[in-house]
Amino acid sequence: MLNVGIVGATGYAGEELIGILIRHPEVRITNISAKIDKPKIFSEIFPKFKNTLDLICTEPDIKKIISQCELVFLALPHTVSMEIAPSLLNAGKKVIDLSADYRLKDVKIYEKFYKTKQKDKVYIKEAIYGLPELYREKIKNARLIANPGCYPTAAILALAPVVAFGLIDSSQIIIDAKSGVSGAGRKAAEELIFSEINEDFKAYKVNTHQHMPEINQELSKLANRLINVTFVPHLLPLNRGILETIYLKKSQKSKIKNQKLITLYKKFYKKEPFVRVKDEGDFPTLKEVVGTNFCDISIKDYGNIIIIIVAIDNLLKGASGQAVQNMNIMYKFPEYLGLT
Amino acid sequence: MLNVGIVGATGYAGEELIGILIRHPEVRITNISAKIDKPKIFSEIFPKFKNTLDLICTEPDIKKIISQCELVFLALPHTVSMEIAPSLLNAGKKVIDLSADYRLKDVKIYEKFYKTKQKDKVYIKEAIYGLPELYREKIKNARLIANPGCYPTAAILALAPVVAFGLIDSSQIIIDAKSGVSGAGRKAAEELIFSEINEDFKAYKVNTHQHMPEINQELSKLANRLINVTFVPHLLPLNRGILETIYLKKSQKSKIKNQKLITLYKKFYKKEPFVRVKDEGDFPTLKEVVGTNFCDISIKDYGNIIIIIVAIDNLLKGASGQAVQNMNIMYKFPEYLGLT
Amino acid sequence: MLNVGIVGATGYAGEELIGILIRHPEVRITNISAKIDKPKIFSEIFPKFKNTLDLICTEPDIKKIISQCELVFLALPHTVSMEIAPSLLNAGKKVIDLSADYRLKDVKIYEKFYKTKQKDKVYIKEAIYGLPELYREKIKNARLIANPGCYPTAAILALAPVVAFGLIDSSQIIIDAKSGVSGAGRKAAEELIFSEINEDFKAYKVNTHQHMPEINQELSKLANRLINVTFVPHLLPLNRGILETIYLKKSQKSKIKNQKLITLYKKFYKKEPFVRVKDEGDFPTLKEVVGTNFCDISIKDYGNIIIIIVAIDNLLKGASGQAVQNMNIMYKFPEYLGLT
Amino acid sequence: MLNVGIVGATGYAGEELIGILIRHPEVRITNISAKIDKPKIFSEIFPKFKNTLDLICTEPDIKKIISQCELVFLALPHTVSMEIAPSLLNAGKKVIDLSADYRLKDVKIYEKFYKTKQKDKVYIKEAIYGLPELYREKIKNARLIANPGCYPTAAILALAPVVAFGLIDSSQIIIDAKSGVSGAGRKAAEELIFSEINEDFKAYKVNTHQHMPEINQELSKLANRLINVTFVPHLLPLNRGILETIYLKKSQKSKIKNQKLITLYKKFYKKEPFVRVKDEGDFPTLKEVVGTNFCDISIKDYGNIIIIIVAIDNLLKGASGQAVQNMNIMYKFPEYLGLT
Repeated sequence: MLNVGIVGATGYAGEELIGILIRHPEVRITNISAKIDKPKIFSEIFPKFKNTLDLICTEPDIKKIISQCELVFLALPHTVSMEIAPSLLNAGKKVIDLSADYRLKDVKIYEKFYKTKQKDKVYIKEAIYGLPELYREKIKNARLIANPGCYPTAAILALAPVVAFGLIDSSQIIIDAKSGVSGAGRKAAEELIFSEINEDFKAYKVNTHQHMPEINQELSKLANRLINVTFVPHLLPLNRGILETIYLKKSQKSKIKNQKLITLYKKFYKKEPFVRVKDEGDFPTLKEVVGTNFCDISIKDYGNIIIIIVAIDNLLKGASGQAVQNMNIMYKFPEYLGLT
Repeated sequence: MLNVGIVGATGYAGEELIGILIRHPEVRITNISAKIDKPKIFSEIFPKFKNTLDLICTEPDIKKIISQCELVFLALPHTVSMEIAPSLLNAGKKVIDLSADYRLKDVKIYEKFYKTKQKDKVYIKEAIYGLPELYREKIKNARLIANPGCYPTAAILALAPVVAFGLIDSSQIIIDAKSGVSGAGRKAAEELIFSEINEDFKAYKVNTHQHMPEINQELSKLANRLINVTFVPHLLPLNRGILETIYLKKSQKSKIKNQKLITLYKKFYKKEPFVRVKDEGDFPTLKEVVGTNFCDISIKDYGNIIIIIVAIDNLLKGASGQAVQNMNIMYKFPEYLGLT
Repeated sequence: MLNVGIVGATGYAGEELIGILIRHPEVRITNISAKIDKPKIFSEIFPKFKNTLDLICTEPDIKKIISQCELVFLALPHTVSMEIAPSLLNAGKKVIDLSADYRLKDVKIYEKFYKTKQKDKVYIKEAIYGLPELYREKIKNARLIANPGCYPTAAILALAPVVAFGLIDSSQIIIDAKSGVSGAGRKAAEELIFSEINEDFKAYKVNTHQHMPEINQELSKLANRLINVTFVPHLLPLNRGILETIYLKKSQKSKIKNQKLITLYKKFYKKEPFVRVKDEGDFPTLKEVVGTNFCDISIKDYGNIIIIIVAIDNLLKGASGQAVQNMNIMYKFPEYLGLT
Repeated sequence: MLNVGIVGATGYAGEELIGILIRHPEVRITNISAKIDKPKIFSEIFPKFKNTLDLICTEPDIKKIISQCELVFLALPHTVSMEIAPSLLNAGKKVIDLSADYRLKDVKIYEKFYKTKQKDKVYIKEAIYGLPELYREKIKNARLIANPGCYPTAAILALAPVVAFGLIDSSQIIIDAKSGVSGAGRKAAEELIFSEINEDFKAYKVNTHQHMPEINQELSKLANRLINVTFVPHLLPLNRGILETIYLKKSQKSKIKNQKLITLYKKFYKKEPFVRVKDEGDFPTLKEVVGTNFCDISIKDYGNIIIIIVAIDNLLKGASGQAVQNMNIMYKFPEYLGLT
């Protein structure tokens, strides 16, 4: 049994992570902590865990975490992770960080988009971007995983094949993204209260969202050239799920047609347990992925335009599900364990 | 034209009130204020008012309000109203207070349920409880209106006829109330954020809600005896509307049957422009009252049980619509003006 | 491995049941059928099951079902179940019927409330009402389970202790029930479309709902006297969950106080894996039970009034989860298997 | 007073239209009809109109309509309008048709996208496309108005200035559209029931929606060249509102910058009572337009990309509000009458 700790257990990602880990047959949760007024039995904070997880949740105590856990999940706001991760890693622990702190290799870009200093210039170099479909081999031996953002997970999986094979005009990648509200985290904010969001819909952080450089970084690597996507996120009045509609232009050399594109995608993701490529004419919907770790992708061309639609559960494949998938890879468990 | 001011313009009730008053043919809004960082054009705070209300909203400036307004609406949290109202009244202005500060005549009960001191022991005596269906004559000449709470408006209108005529066992009045989220006001609070309330439903303040003594006060007056209702409010995952299902037992002497009850209600509310009594077998729904100032009531008996269902829009008949109805009565405007 | 079939696989209960059974370690789904135009791979009807259940769904073929299954779940509309169950039982199969056909022992009451003939006067006598908390011993050896209705499951579990011990005035049981929309089933009906239900709330079938006699039957058995509850169901604008607020009057002899009531409930349900009795001051919410097979119950008294609040997931403890719980009991599997 | 009739009074557009017209000071509703089992008082079908509209709704009786009305609104499904409109026009009545029957001038395109015959080859030539911002002068004297579709109203208003002035590459217009569910009409359909749509989000009719040729027709006219947009509509889990995010590429000759674009838009729509162009950095939200006849537009460029976001209430500016605006123009009423 693997002893794991969760720091940041009371946010949406932490709560979801714990929901998965208590059913995971190879894992024992030995420490849960969060920013919290005073120690509390976890099931008193979340009564739905009554009779299933009655551990005490405290403020994070690094020494205790080190002594009790082999692997630590950090489900924290950015800037907090990079304060905690180094001590854990120095003590020989492994870390899966769900925040953005270790995702962006270019420190300047991190500091610009997150409006804060990158404090850990050491481990940032070692961190592996935890998208199993692209980095499975590196994940196997990683000590520190930078678990991808929700929007980027969907966007990168949707775009990897066409970008890697140079089939599109990489100067014109348009991503129209829509996310459920849990993506904004569990925090008191007037603009997040029910009556403000219910029956409303809007774009936000138009082409300035902090997940945009993460998408650019990974697509640029795949393309071996600098890519800057156009990225407009929108807020859906529902709890969970991300759907992105992506508009592309075929590259001049490429005359690839729809059926071939679909075949290409199916081949690219053939061995992936959590990517499902749709048949022609079928398009993803949130309800087919919410509650699962699947990423559903459809591809359709119209003349020289390609429309890709992709959907994931932002708290699972977009956060905690993917974190567990990474853990499974790191510890040689079957990759789907706890995730079906 | 009547010059009116609104203090507390940025809450849900204030916003709604302004939406009504800008369409009201006898009214000119001359001053709007709220707790606000710095003065702002109102339509910059609420862009939907762009091109319809471009007044500046400032912190309340009592002198200015007195010089610019004849009637002032206070759409404020309780405790704040009683700090402002006396100055306005002393200056000869009329006040319609949408808070709870002037509703409860028994100071001890106010202080117990609102956990604060009653600071205005003078005007509390003069304040008229602004439920037009019961107090229209007094409202005509009132200087200070205590605009009723949302739950009490529905409950009292639903119960007034049977209580006044002594048709029920007044020791067993059970009110199962359900309200949309706007009733909780516009405030940053973790328990009010979308993902917490969406797809959830629960009871809260079980038999301890601060609107319970308000219902008790008014029913006791009607019955000429002390009444203590059982009152359980619940939070509905929707924006607007209150529906209450009320369970009664016929009084021993009463053998009144359903059709007679309905006739009695129709007669009781015959001249009321905003109370609609349903025919037998018809029951209210929120969508038939939301966006209107109507209060819909159905009555149905089963043996010696009577079930009354009542519905209102909590922001209209339960707050701002009723405030305007009171204003119309005070100033001899047609009672429905601005409310259809 | 137990071979099971599901008839009625495309309704909400059938879909949910399959979601549970594919993860159940002791079960193999060998036949799925439904009213359907032409045979289809199940994951084509519900793409979310892609890669997890790729069985073909056909019209029910009784012979095939008999040859392929040991246990058959009927997730059918009432009247259809009693046409299919007898053939299965005659062939030695076991049946768990999720419809209402075998729940009401009094044929006249069934025929009155369901407006149809009771066609199976034989097996109706043998059917066991599948509420494990009351009938576990009988369920162990049952051939035919009448799986309880959703509203009755919550109501009976909430009331069993006080009714069984005679602590309340059984002539005054008031159940104010609220259910999510999935309770109405998956069927094309104008009154069920999104824009009709979203942002609305209303009572329906006021004191005439077909689940009322089911509650009466079971409470009467427990009380050893005829009980007629008052029962008003309401429709919540959300997908899943039932919450019932129940108002009771203590019986004249009973002077039992709150803490004793809670202790009594905790003792009554001590060994139950799926009933959680709340501590004083804690009340159930839908989100704490939705997605689980738990039934959460709170008890609070005010003078001689007792208020009980109970919550379940209508598709799990109120339907498919309970059906699997019954299966686990019948086949001596751990009772929680597949349900955590 | 203008006597008007509404055919199709029970759909969402008809209901909304009646809600506007009963408050319109220059209009008297003299006839309402719909596909209906038997004549019914309108407020029995929609109890919210109780005490405000108690006219009888019958099946359409053309003779009666002709004798009672001067202007007739057709709020009908396509194909039905073109069966009724000719008789009314032949009798000298004026018609505002909210269906798609008279919108597409190219009969072949109509027949392809609506999969039906164009039966009225006469009046189709005369019909004026009722978008006041483009065709106000023609509307003034029109006998037959083809009231625009909801998606096209938003898209055309958002694109008219840049297309008319040739500022964009007209071969790359990408419209990512999102609509509330009332856009699908009031009809019993399994895919429209609450539990199917709530908490879900998806694209539909990807680049094949029948509103696409309507957008193409009007933009092509404005550009004086053939335009084919890319158009992907999505279904939002909310009642009302359309928001479209539009992605454009500046034309090669154009080096226009953001502030100039905004100025251009503000000038273009300067005299329009219902188009509001946002200042830089402000973006539309549904809640700012729902319940109003406004169309809100924002423009933002990033290098050679322009992002336009536009929002309307699909039942008002996208249907019934626009129909009343057209009526106001035809009869020389102030254009905003009944619409504020």
